[in-house]
Parts: sequence; structure tokens; C-alpha cells
Amino acid sequence: MELVALGTGAASPTLERNVAAYALLRLGEILLFDCGEGTQVQFAKAKLSMYKVSKIFITHLHGDHFYGLIPFLTTLQLNKRTTPLEIYGPKGLREYIDFMKRISQVGFQYDLKITEIDEEFEGGIIFENSEYVVKAMPLLHRIFVLGYSLEEKEKPGHFNNELAEELGIPSGPIRGEIKNGATVTLENGAVVTPEMIIGDPIKGKKVTYCTDTLYYKNSIELANESDLLIHEGTFDPDELEKAQQTKHATSLQAALVAKESNSKNLLITHISSRYVGANRNLIKKGIAEVFPDFTIAKDLMRVKI
Amino acid sequence: MELVALGTGAASPTLERNVAAYALLRLGEILLFDCGEGTQVQFAKAKLSMYKVSKIFITHLHGDHFYGLIPFLTTLQLNKRTTPLEIYGPKGLREYIDFMKRISQVGFQYDLKITEIDEEFEGGIIFENSEYVVKAMPLLHRIFVLGYSLEEKEKPGHFNNELAEELGIPSGPIRGEIKNGATVTLENGAVVTPEMIIGDPIKGKKVTYCTDTLYYKNSIELANESDLLIHEGTFDPDELEKAQQTKHATSLQAALVAKESNSKNLLITHISSRYVGANRNLIKKGIAEVFPDFTIAKDLMRVKI
Repeated sequence: MELVALGTGAASPTLERNVAAYALLRLGEILLFDCGEGTQVQFAKAKLSMYKVSKIFITHLHGDHFYGLIPFLTTLQLNKRTTPLEIYGPKGLREYIDFMKRISQVGFQYDLKITEIDEEFEGGIIFENSEYVVKAMPLLHRIFVLGYSLEEKEKPGHFNNELAEELGIPSGPIRGEIKNGATVTLENGAVVTPEMIIGDPIKGKKVTYCTDTLYYKNSIELANESDLLIHEGTFDPDELEKAQQTKHATSLQAALVAKESNSKNLLITHISSRYVGANRNLIKKGIAEVFPDFTIAKDLMRVKI
Repeated sequence: MELVALGTGAASPTLERNVAAYALLRLGEILLFDCGEGTQVQFAKAKLSMYKVSKIFITHLHGDHFYGLIPFLTTLQLNKRTTPLEIYGPKGLREYIDFMKRISQVGFQYDLKITEIDEEFEGGIIFENSEYVVKAMPLLHRIFVLGYSLEEKEKPGHFNNELAEELGIPSGPIRGEIKNGATVTLENGAVVTPEMIIGDPIKGKKVTYCTDTLYYKNSIELANESDLLIHEGTFDPDELEKAQQTKHATSLQAALVAKESNSKNLLITHISSRYVGANRNLIKKGIAEVFPDFTIAKDLMRVKI
């Protein structure tokens, strides 16, 4: 998988940071997390195709996380998309989409499957297919907000073709049987078990996205053992009071969540526009001591997972 | 006055052209015409202050002309604007603003004065102060749309100080009387009329903005004797049928409106994204023969008026 940071700023776009949006590239598919104003232009800048987006996950209904959604959906319509699109997010999303369709007189000929999650939701799987699972959990902000994680399922281990030749296993159905877990007896009487020829299962990767939120136990639970945790750090560690007041986290708290969730890497996002120029490095202060494998997100940055 | 083209494209933003928005700079004030998605970032790119915007005029409620409005208003709020702001546009604008305030839980502590214009409106003055008049007229598109013109009022002619010295008119109240239109008799018995010393009144400038619309008589009437007409030319002259179908104008029709309205200069805007690369010049074809003083708008272009 590869993550593309489309918008790493907080509240309002600047020339340096657009508002919240992250594209997760996985095989031919793109999963979009948040869709602040201007996300469609960020796709163009990042040379990503909007048409590959299969699912959109909205964390909460503050403008910097969803004002780009209707423009995004409208452009897909203007370009005659027919592939269905799934959208997940807090209750209110459907009302927003319906209202905007009516007021701006736009209809969507592609199928829009909206899944609203209400405030009673305590966390759990919201999507699952043969390849991955998406979970959501409520986080803690001024309004109802959801964190999301995507976890790939374990894939079967590598079938060792060279060893199969050596053991004299003929090509064809018998190899398929072994791949499916069967123990087989060859013509020469040798018994071959799957374990002999198939490597250990390949563990899937996990990505977690937590914004906007206070430092919160649910983030730690949701992010458990992530390969990459994207967590907000709107303010620097010295601005803890300001963070608490506005129900945001500091960059240091993002690091604590990464550490406590036993995540491998941390991308700190939703950076306040105050951290420019001479203030740029304040956001990094003391983070490495808590969690060394962190990066401050920048727009259009790409992270392999 | 100076016009700054913030968004010159049609339908969806591209890396080259953002969607509709024009800033008209006049003394310390900015009047904003349309506010497509991303207009606030265009302000930053153009190094304009959003806080100088006193009035916003929305032509119609298609997304590419107003999806940037709520994000724009929200950023003003986040930055603690207190100065009142006036918004003019078609009926529906207030419902949009009220809905978005509710769904994204944002309130505006500055006073927002919304003037909605309904479909019965046949055209006329919508704003007037001592310096200028703004008129609107319905144009012809798939939905109700308004064209806007701003016309400065005539200013008093220049008071010739040098001549006043020569004629022996003392500094002070007597000069004020002449400026106010009085004929005065000097101590030496000479009679001085205002016409002797004050130049001809200075004619105000006029700017007109017509988009989205078919070629239409109201555009010609509204634009009458404009110093600058900004008129849509979504398609090139050979795409007349396509323009008619979608209720847009060709660039040639924009030129006809400029000519028939006796305007001085024409800025062709709302250019379809098809006019890139090898197609770039199609939009100019045959325009100069009809109206030589035309320009194809580009994002961030500035035009003195």
C-alpha cells in the first residue's frame, strides 16, 4: 500500500497545507480519508485518478474535513462515472449530500452507497472483503468524530516452486491441492504436506487514521499494532492547554498514542497554520524521545506501507 | 479599479484554471464575483486579503460558482472577522448558508447580510452608495442566473490649483465654495465661476460580469458601455451547437455581446477544460474580426480598469 498526503493542515487551507484528505492506494483502488475543500485539485497535483476512488471515509462534519466532498462527487458525475462509490461517515452525511444535490441541481448517475454511523456506535467493523477489514471507532472532539483503520488480511505464504520441482511434484492440479491445504502422496510414495512447500502466511499491513481528537484511549485501541498511524498533532507540546480547550491533540500526544498502540510508524498531521517560518520546528519538540519513527506530514508526501 | 481573475475555468477545477471567482479591487475594498471551490486559496496565491471583501455576488447555484462560499465564510469566522459582509445572489443562497452552518456546526459572529433575488426579478439596481451602483439582470442558463455590473458614479472635475493662484483666489473657504458650485466675486472685483477653474466631471468606470449564459439581449443591455465586460465563452465558435445544448455561449458570442453593448474591452472567461494543449487557440478563432480588444482570461491575471 501507499499513502498520499493530500491535505495536512488544520482549519483553513494555506499555500503550504491544504485541509484534510489522505489517499490510500491499494492495488487498483484508492480509499480516501476525509475530503476537505480542494481535494480534487490535490488529486491532480498528486497525479492520482479520482476515478479509482472506491470508498470515502469522513471523520467528522467540520468543514475542513468534508467541504470538498460535494465538489468531488460532482466532478465524478460530470466525467460520467458509472462505478458505484461508497461513503462512510457520521450521521448527517446523507442529509448534506441530499441537500447539496437539490440546491445545486446535480444528480449522480453512479450509485452512491452512503453508510452513516451514529453517535451510539461504540466501534467495530464497518467494511470487510476478502482482502481487508475497515474498522471505525469514535474519538473525542467537539463534535462526533470517527477514527478509521484498514487492516489487510493475512495472505497465504509463498509456494516454493523450486522446491516443488526438486521434490518431483508435477505441475497441475496436485499443486493446487497442496496450496489449498491438502497433504498429498506422490507417485514415488513420498508424502508432501503444505508446510513443507508453503512459507509462513504473510501478515497484512495496517494503517490507522485518527483526527480530530484529544489524546484518547480509543485511538490507542484502534491503532493497535499499526504499520502506520496517522494521528493529528494540531499543536506543539507546549500548547497542551490550547489543545485541550479546542479538543485537539499535541504532537507529543500523537507520539504517545503511537507508542502505546505499539505502532511502527507515525505520521503527524492536521498541523496548525501557526507552524510556519521560525515556528516550524516547535511541533517536533521532544517527539523523538517518545517515539523516534515519526514524520511531520507535508502535502503531497508519499509513504509506502 | 483592478480586476483579479481568481478562477477562469468551467465545471471543475484543473491545475491551470480554478472554477469561477473574480475579485474587483476598488480603493480599500474588494468585491467578489462568484466563489467556486478553492477561492480562498486563490486569494492567497494572488496575495489578496480575504478580509477586505465587503460584498460577494453569486451568479447562480451551480457548484462551480458557489461551492467555495461556505469555506470562505468559515475561514473569515475562524480569523475572527467582525466587519459585516453582504452577499447577493439567487434565492436559495440563504437556505444553503443556514443549512451548512447547521450541518458543520459553525456560526458567524460577523453580520452576514444576505440579499436573495428571485426569479421574478427583471433587472435593476441592487446596491448603491455615494461612489458606485451595482445592477443585476437575469441571464439565460439551465437554472436562474444573474449578471452583474458595477458602475462608478461621476466624480467632480479636477480643481486647477495653479490657475487659482494665477487668478488670485485665496486659499481657504472661498475655494471650497467654488468647488461646491458657487460663483464668487474676488476682492479685486473679478468674477470666478466654477467652470473657469474646475475641469469636466470625471466619468466613472463600468465593469460587467456575465456567466453562465447563452448569447442574450440582457447581457447586452446590462453591459452597455462597459469599460470591461467579463463574459463567458465556454466553447469555441465551432461548438455553437454544444453551447446551445448546455446553455452556454461561444467565445464569438461573447465578442458579439461586447460589440453590441459598445464595451471597450472584453475578457472571455469560464473556459472549458478541453482548451488545453493543441486545442488552446481554438477559443480565439475569428474573435478579433468581431471585437479586437479581447483577452482570454487566465487565472491570477490582473486587469486595470
